[in-house]
Amino acid sequence: MKIVVLNCGSSSIKYQLFDMPSQEVLAKGLVDKIGLKGSLVKHWRQDGTEVKLEGEILDHQSGIEYFLGILTSEKYGSIKSINEIDAFGHRVVHAGEKFKSSVSITPEVVEALEECIELAPLHNPPNLEGIYAVTGLLPNIPQVGVFDTAFHQTMEDYVYLYGIPYSLYDKYKIRRYGFHGSSHKFVSRKACEILGKNIDDLKIITCHLGNGASIAAIKNGKSFDTSMGMTPIEGLIMGTRCGDLDVGAFMYMLNKEEIDIPTGNVLINKFSGMLGISGISSDMRDLWAAAGEGEKRAITALHMYEYRVRKYIGSYAAAMGGVDLIIFTGGVGENDYKIREMVMKELAFLGIDFDFELNTGLRGIETTLTKPDSRVTVMIVPTNEELVIALDTYDIVTGVFVE
Amino acid sequence: MKIVVLNCGSSSIKYQLFDMPSQEVLAKGLVDKIGLKGSLVKHWRQDGTEVKLEGEILDHQSGIEYFLGILTSEKYGSIKSINEIDAFGHRVVHAGEKFKSSVSITPEVVEALEECIELAPLHNPPNLEGIYAVTGLLPNIPQVGVFDTAFHQTMEDYVYLYGIPYSLYDKYKIRRYGFHGSSHKFVSRKACEILGKNIDDLKIITCHLGNGASIAAIKNGKSFDTSMGMTPIEGLIMGTRCGDLDVGAFMYMLNKEEIDIPTGNVLINKFSGMLGISGISSDMRDLWAAAGEGEKRAITALHMYEYRVRKYIGSYAAAMGGVDLIIFTGGVGENDYKIREMVMKELAFLGIDFDFELNTGLRGIETTLTKPDSRVTVMIVPTNEELVIALDTYDIVTGVFVE
Repeated sequence: MKIVVLNCGSSSIKYQLFDMPSQEVLAKGLVDKIGLKGSLVKHWRQDGTEVKLEGEILDHQSGIEYFLGILTSEKYGSIKSINEIDAFGHRVVHAGEKFKSSVSITPEVVEALEECIELAPLHNPPNLEGIYAVTGLLPNIPQVGVFDTAFHQTMEDYVYLYGIPYSLYDKYKIRRYGFHGSSHKFVSRKACEILGKNIDDLKIITCHLGNGASIAAIKNGKSFDTSMGMTPIEGLIMGTRCGDLDVGAFMYMLNKEEIDIPTGNVLINKFSGMLGISGISSDMRDLWAAAGEGEKRAITALHMYEYRVRKYIGSYAAAMGGVDLIIFTGGVGENDYKIREMVMKELAFLGIDFDFELNTGLRGIETTLTKPDSRVTVMIVPTNEELVIALDTYDIVTGVFVE
Repeated sequence: MKIVVLNCGSSSIKYQLFDMPSQEVLAKGLVDKIGLKGSLVKHWRQDGTEVKLEGEILDHQSGIEYFLGILTSEKYGSIKSINEIDAFGHRVVHAGEKFKSSVSITPEVVEALEECIELAPLHNPPNLEGIYAVTGLLPNIPQVGVFDTAFHQTMEDYVYLYGIPYSLYDKYKIRRYGFHGSSHKFVSRKACEILGKNIDDLKIITCHLGNGASIAAIKNGKSFDTSMGMTPIEGLIMGTRCGDLDVGAFMYMLNKEEIDIPTGNVLINKFSGMLGISGISSDMRDLWAAAGEGEKRAITALHMYEYRVRKYIGSYAAAMGGVDLIIFTGGVGENDYKIREMVMKELAFLGIDFDFELNTGLRGIETTLTKPDSRVTVMIVPTNEELVIALDTYDIVTGVFVE
């Protein structure tokens, strides 16, 4: 069975063609600068072929037509005809409280997701564009929606509510939703598979540290708490997002800078985090280089980053009444061994016997980082959100999906 | 030596007359409704005499004159003449980064505190009113300022900075300051005294749970981190304050409710927290009563309250690399044994052997709540912020103060 996984942004489309259930990636690529000058497609094929094609791509539908053309082309293709594709899986960021798991796309589902646009005004519209486009091109093909928020719908009310008037939840559904659900779910299950353990017996903390970053507490296989909130601003310090911030300080900042809320919103989303603190870069590699040269603010930013991660780990251990397994994933979590080292240095009291030597230099490889007798296990598990979408799509289309 | 401790609010003055170094409270009282209709003084004397006197009290200076009159009166007095008073100690909420400990009030100090008004526009002005009034009435008497923020000035930059552009700290000193410093300091020292332990060797978490509430991590006697931030909005869920809140959710709320920032500020300060969630009361006793009657939202609010406290305890253990001693203080911390029970139920993994039986029903008494072999000690230590002010004033005036 061939499944196309789509992740549509406002001016880009990431796509992957999976063979299922083998999980082989036959081809993948990026349609970039949609509706902008210089739109192009970067395409990669399983045999290593890489190609960059430019063209006028005005909207998501023509973007999808474009890469489907490549996928079925004689020169760069992986399949003979569009008819070989069995299903499309879409990443959709925000499903509010509407969906607790992945679902088949129906007109009712589309309507429900349109109602969630307000909750994620930047993300849901392009996600929906992808669904509209596929529906327009291939009206009868099965499509599945996989939601960033769905995995976290198991949180209890005392975990997801904020300390604001309850009426604001009642009226507007203001609450913690959490994101990166597919990643937290994937790496927690994968780790249990590797360890041969039953996820239902474990207290797991998954640290998805990428450019966006969140931590989740997973108890008995279910998301129990997570650091991103109603929006992806809350929680960890990220590349350009502030994470947790005193709302009083935010108001003070708007007042002193004489800026309005939309400008403040841009400031805390695009110019804060590691970039804002360091004044250098949002990229950890640049920051380590600068820190190596003694740049004080780069050092401070790195320290702030790990300190926030460490505090959340402690917090979620207390939330679940302990922790058995801690997983690092995402670009930073998988590759930045120095951050892992800093975080783990102070966590021995949790029963973690971390193998600092083994950790040093390790990048992107599934590894257990604790010594054999460590009460708590710490692992690197590379994430694969596209694969989660392919798996859920496969399960739903073949009807084996149970949740 | 006689010391008067003053805590001036916008329309009230709390005062206490201490005999030092004996720490005896000779008299205390409250001047209330200053500048309002029905202003009055409630006065209490060491022998149990209680009196309520009404009068026109238009400003802080006349309020201070009024209670000094009572203190020296034949009928209700404790001293013969104002000249018996040796010093005044003032509670001042916000000293920004200017003072790291209590100080003698000089014209330069007053100027520095005036510069901090912007940081605490509701609190610092009445605190300063008290200083101006005493200076006007008794120009030559020694006065000492004791600051809520001072104890937390030992935090490292990576702890006190937010994930926003560094320039905002540089320009406006936007950072975590923390409050309740006198209380966190007092109970941590008191506990060590009781236990016969050296504070320099300990990792302590102090939970000041009152109507306002904050937690502090105290490492080797110094404040290492604390939950209130630049403003007292951040951190725990309080009586009417929201505590930690996704700034994205805050912006969403303003937008949906069509309210401006000042209104939003009032909403999260005065109508949120336990009151806002429960829709019933900000008082824990009311909420337990309602919960007992099965009120779902009261139960949720109580669960949210303890969950936030518990997460901060885990977080600060991770921040310090462990914890040796946890202290409950403040109205809720000292008296609400059910909250303590809920918090402790899930924290055995930290090495806490909590004596649930001993805890049950305990209110406001200095007690060790853990069993003798517990690795971590948990205590109730009633706070006494006025005594801290009296002690600091005494130390500074007699010249023994060393910090």
